[in-house]
Amino acid sequence: MQWTKVLGLGLGAAALLGLGIILGHFAIPKKANSPAPQDLDLAILETVMGQLDAHRIRENLRELSREPHLASSPRDEDLVQLLLQRWKDPGSGLDSAEASTYEVLLSFPSQEQPNVVDVVGPTGDIIHSCHRTEENVTGEQGGPDVVQPYAAYAPSGTPQAVNAAKHGVAGVLVYTDPADINDGLSSPNETFPNSWYLPPSGVERGSYYEYFGDPLTPYLPAVPSSFRVDLANVSGFPPIPTQPIGFQDARDLLCNLNGTLAPATWQGALGCRYRLGPGFRPDGDFPADSQVSVSVYNRLELRNSSNVLGIIRGAVEPDRYVLYGNHRDSWVHGAVDPSSGTAVLLELSRVLGTLLKKGTWRPRRSIVFASWGAEEFGLIGSTEFTEEFFNKLQERTVAYINVDISVFANATLRVQGTPPVQSVVFSATKEIRSPGPGDLSIYDNWIRYFNRSSPVYGLVPSLGSLGAGSDYAPFIHFLGISSMDIAYTYDRSKTSARIYPTYHTAFDTFDYMDKFLDPGFSSHQAVARTAGSVILRLSDSFFLPLKVSDYSETLRSFLQAAEQDLGALLEQHSISLGPLVTAVEKFEAEASALGQRISTLQKGSPDPLQVRMLNDQLMLLERTFLNPRAFPEERYYSHVLWAPRTGSVATFPGLSNACSRARDTASGSEAWAEVQRQLSIVVTALEGAAATLRPVADL
Amino acid sequence: MQWTKVLGLGLGAAALLGLGIILGHFAIPKKANSPAPQDLDLAILETVMGQLDAHRIRENLRELSREPHLASSPRDEDLVQLLLQRWKDPGSGLDSAEASTYEVLLSFPSQEQPNVVDVVGPTGDIIHSCHRTEENVTGEQGGPDVVQPYAAYAPSGTPQAVNAAKHGVAGVLVYTDPADINDGLSSPNETFPNSWYLPPSGVERGSYYEYFGDPLTPYLPAVPSSFRVDLANVSGFPPIPTQPIGFQDARDLLCNLNGTLAPATWQGALGCRYRLGPGFRPDGDFPADSQVSVSVYNRLELRNSSNVLGIIRGAVEPDRYVLYGNHRDSWVHGAVDPSSGTAVLLELSRVLGTLLKKGTWRPRRSIVFASWGAEEFGLIGSTEFTEEFFNKLQERTVAYINVDISVFANATLRVQGTPPVQSVVFSATKEIRSPGPGDLSIYDNWIRYFNRSSPVYGLVPSLGSLGAGSDYAPFIHFLGISSMDIAYTYDRSKTSARIYPTYHTAFDTFDYMDKFLDPGFSSHQAVARTAGSVILRLSDSFFLPLKVSDYSETLRSFLQAAEQDLGALLEQHSISLGPLVTAVEKFEAEASALGQRISTLQKGSPDPLQVRMLNDQLMLLERTFLNPRAFPEERYYSHVLWAPRTGSVATFPGLSNACSRARDTASGSEAWAEVQRQLSIVVTALEGAAATLRPVADL
Repeated sequence: MQWTKVLGLGLGAAALLGLGIILGHFAIPKKANSPAPQDLDLAILETVMGQLDAHRIRENLRELSREPHLASSPRDEDLVQLLLQRWKDPGSGLDSAEASTYEVLLSFPSQEQPNVVDVVGPTGDIIHSCHRTEENVTGEQGGPDVVQPYAAYAPSGTPQAVNAAKHGVAGVLVYTDPADINDGLSSPNETFPNSWYLPPSGVERGSYYEYFGDPLTPYLPAVPSSFRVDLANVSGFPPIPTQPIGFQDARDLLCNLNGTLAPATWQGALGCRYRLGPGFRPDGDFPADSQVSVSVYNRLELRNSSNVLGIIRGAVEPDRYVLYGNHRDSWVHGAVDPSSGTAVLLELSRVLGTLLKKGTWRPRRSIVFASWGAEEFGLIGSTEFTEEFFNKLQERTVAYINVDISVFANATLRVQGTPPVQSVVFSATKEIRSPGPGDLSIYDNWIRYFNRSSPVYGLVPSLGSLGAGSDYAPFIHFLGISSMDIAYTYDRSKTSARIYPTYHTAFDTFDYMDKFLDPGFSSHQAVARTAGSVILRLSDSFFLPLKVSDYSETLRSFLQAAEQDLGALLEQHSISLGPLVTAVEKFEAEASALGQRISTLQKGSPDPLQVRMLNDQLMLLERTFLNPRAFPEERYYSHVLWAPRTGSVATFPGLSNACSRARDTASGSEAWAEVQRQLSIVVTALEGAAATLRPVADL
Repeated sequence: MQWTKVLGLGLGAAALLGLGIILGHFAIPKKANSPAPQDLDLAILETVMGQLDAHRIRENLRELSREPHLASSPRDEDLVQLLLQRWKDPGSGLDSAEASTYEVLLSFPSQEQPNVVDVVGPTGDIIHSCHRTEENVTGEQGGPDVVQPYAAYAPSGTPQAVNAAKHGVAGVLVYTDPADINDGLSSPNETFPNSWYLPPSGVERGSYYEYFGDPLTPYLPAVPSSFRVDLANVSGFPPIPTQPIGFQDARDLLCNLNGTLAPATWQGALGCRYRLGPGFRPDGDFPADSQVSVSVYNRLELRNSSNVLGIIRGAVEPDRYVLYGNHRDSWVHGAVDPSSGTAVLLELSRVLGTLLKKGTWRPRRSIVFASWGAEEFGLIGSTEFTEEFFNKLQERTVAYINVDISVFANATLRVQGTPPVQSVVFSATKEIRSPGPGDLSIYDNWIRYFNRSSPVYGLVPSLGSLGAGSDYAPFIHFLGISSMDIAYTYDRSKTSARIYPTYHTAFDTFDYMDKFLDPGFSSHQAVARTAGSVILRLSDSFFLPLKVSDYSETLRSFLQAAEQDLGALLEQHSISLGPLVTAVEKFEAEASALGQRISTLQKGSPDPLQVRMLNDQLMLLERTFLNPRAFPEERYYSHVLWAPRTGSVATFPGLSNACSRARDTASGSEAWAEVQRQLSIVVTALEGAAATLRPVADL
């Protein structure tokens, strides 16, 4: 309750300020065709900040999460229409909007034959059945549109003990332990709707596909005419039947297991000591020679899934795109995931669209809004989009901003991104009030939760790095576009939950968000303001606010880790880090010199073409780290700094991974040759990147 | 003789015109810092055309070809210094110039142990030895710097008959038949120095490496620190000892062979009927049981090879590069190959450099001159350069212009290039007088020798397509930069020689060029003027003179070939060309619409940023045809329209090749799946290309 009061005050002040700014702004008459603004207009920025409305975000969320909207379902298609309607609204829409559809391979449980997990007694009779649906606690967990919990892309089948004996494992049951998701709590009166914790019947759905993108059309857009890999040749699906269950059912199985005690780190909060099996213990609930029978009836289906795209045309540089997106599809109602992000997306597009339609403002560069389809199955809509428009996007996109779940919790901002976006996020968040108690900026609040000591800046909020958890993955890893993911999240001193507890369950509902995660929606508003400010700064600033020299810290830390943790090993195998040291130093020097040239130019009155050339250097820096031949076994991953790292040393991933594979082989092995190749790939990328930062007419 | 008279007249007229233009030009005072020109300055163009001097080109050639300058030899390094000196000249040099060196794997014959081809009699005595050097006909075929004829990268070894029996072929002797190179002539009095034909002792050297670029560092620049593939793992070297010989020696061997008659198409002009062996005929010059003994002592060596780069900084868009290059290294004196090109390069840089140093002119965009090293061994210098600066070049290069051998013969211009460069070459050549008799433009002369009927333009000169015969290969195939190769060449009604007869021999000398290929050097001048005009048009025109809609004809012809020659076959296997038809139509429509938008804009007074955006669409179109994953087995070849075509149908190479492999397999085979994949790759590329041509803010 305290939160909403403070929020009410904050909103009032912001609204007044915004109104003043609007009046001030309109007092100076502007023609719609007046000369395009040269630079970020702080008055417009303030207007946007003031108009982003927590209440409207809440209403967006209520509508978006009213029904389950699984990818390609009728309700998912209804939301496509809702987005189109909003983005085509004459008073608050964008310049244009359209849906584009791909035909993609999804995986669903059978509606006729539910997936089944039973305990079968020695005579073949069913002694115990796991729940096939979640308990209808709030009235929203029932009905035909709530998809049965399942592991998407897990093959169908009924594993038999004979197979189990032969292959070791015949099927997999997955559950989330209350120790990991509920801070140990598990009883109904301690869980939703009585708290934010997961009810005992809650089951986390998910995609079990190893890669991302449509499984049948790697590197090709999944348009109907595209070549599709034969199903028999698809890789990345789980090899054996798999089914998720709730922790209530998991307790019934796990607490009755026989055998040796599981390791201490495997123990959880189900109220018993976990054992490894095989078989049930003789003094338990089931006869000792009972079996667990798992029947999975998942089906692969080619389905139409849509992206929705909308654009605000840039006034001066329409061929530079600031791309902002989130997925639309959910597992069930998906109030948090992803509708909290979509609610923000709609409010941002409304505020900007309104200014646009009034003729008050048009950005220097184009702003593209995207609502992706089928993300939950493996980032499919965004990946197909990048496959279809690879060159156009790679040539022209300034940055990609992702807001998926906008609010995990209401404690602090959390940003993942590549170094060039750090400074624009810092600039934005320093100017926005934090929704919490006290008079802190989002930046000042953020730094209390996530921080690091930067050799350049001192104590600053720390950005996380981008994995492949949401739709930014194809943009950063496949296209080399500077990307970020923005959300509000937890106070880690208050919970150790892996993620908000109802994640991917039928309990992720509007009320859940409204009551437990962000009452008053001030954190949604904070995310909207942060993203909005970042969008405006990227689209309107004369000089692109991408600070490429911030990559120097990353490179230096990767280099130091390589020297400290791999240097001796490499030396034993006569591999020198010298060329890498030189390359990092060259990058640092060129990035710093470019920064100085920009500073100098900013003091003068540079002409637009001059600035465009510098901006191209900034925009395209991230591309120089791509090498599509660096990791042939990794689908889509071409970024030599952010590819998946399996090696333990926090350095360049290719180097780290190759070293961890070579470690136990002799000098001269192919594994050590691969270490040298990976080192050369990184050195070439860094030298090439440095070359693009030099004055453009230097040889 | 007639040629030189006409040339004298032509030169005089051009010089007068040029002088007038210069006077006119200088009458209007210009400051060095005057506002940069907005567009191509026709007066400057005329000045440049007038100042390109045939006599100076001749003197350049005399100096360049004075000594053999095999890649990485001392004389090759001397020429590096010569280029640097010219390009750093205070009165006629460029803004800056520098050499950059790679450490690359070359292959040389042993100086201690020459490669040997002998006929060995039954008792082991040598009955006959092939020549180890060419006959010293003009005094330039002797001396230590004339490298012994050899097949670069052929392994060393002395094949034995026992191996021959086991493996079929144990070694290879290569010669050029007088039927193929000499229009059938072969006697000393019919050949050089009495005519342009190859003397009997002449031997064509060459690289027998299958790929291009440094063999040890594929995809990495061959800087000293780069990872090098273990020699045992290098692919692309010839598997067995190989040695080239002259046709005089070939006659001694071939005309004494026993066995069945070779097929009619294998017969040549050595004055005997060619037989297939095995063994020598009993009534010939050698005992019937003689053997041919081949000993190859080639050695692989890591050598330093330099590129020389020079730049004229663009006044307005310095980050757009017009790149012009030729290799510097030769097999022996290399007057034709490559010094005729380098002589033109030096004259072009002198004329432009002089205007630059006088402050008369500075181009809108940057012009980069390149002298590549080690081309003869496999385009090594240019390839390493593209590997080192991949992103910088790919982002910024407007076009690559290659002039290797500038004059093969003096009949007509010959241009190879991708469609976007056609129109700029046409514009240039329509304005330059042809050196031949009559008052024709180079264009009008050209159309008499090479022409085609264009559905758009009617009868036009036909451009050839770019293979991998010179340094343009990495630019077009690996980087997707619109490229062209310019030369003067044969009247095919007068000779059927495969190439100029002394190609890659010690007879390719200054006198050979001066007497037989281009007396008076007017064809050199014509090439210099053509290249110079193309460079100026590309670097100075406000709107880039790259006509992307000229790709439509290529796509249409590829499509028609697919429909006519593959349509029925594809239909049998249920593969539709429909999506390809749609994609081609979409490309045509978008390219045409873009052309119209440009025309409209050209009539107004567009601002530089608007034009820059359009120019980016034009410049980057070629990049959209790259797909580094299209042909995984083809090193560097990523251009889906110009990759090597082995299939017989003149259509998209991936489709053609996949069809020719699938033809005899059943529907559903992997080969047919590959046909479908290749079809989708092309469709995706064309759709993606069309998307980049649309108005930039269209979704």
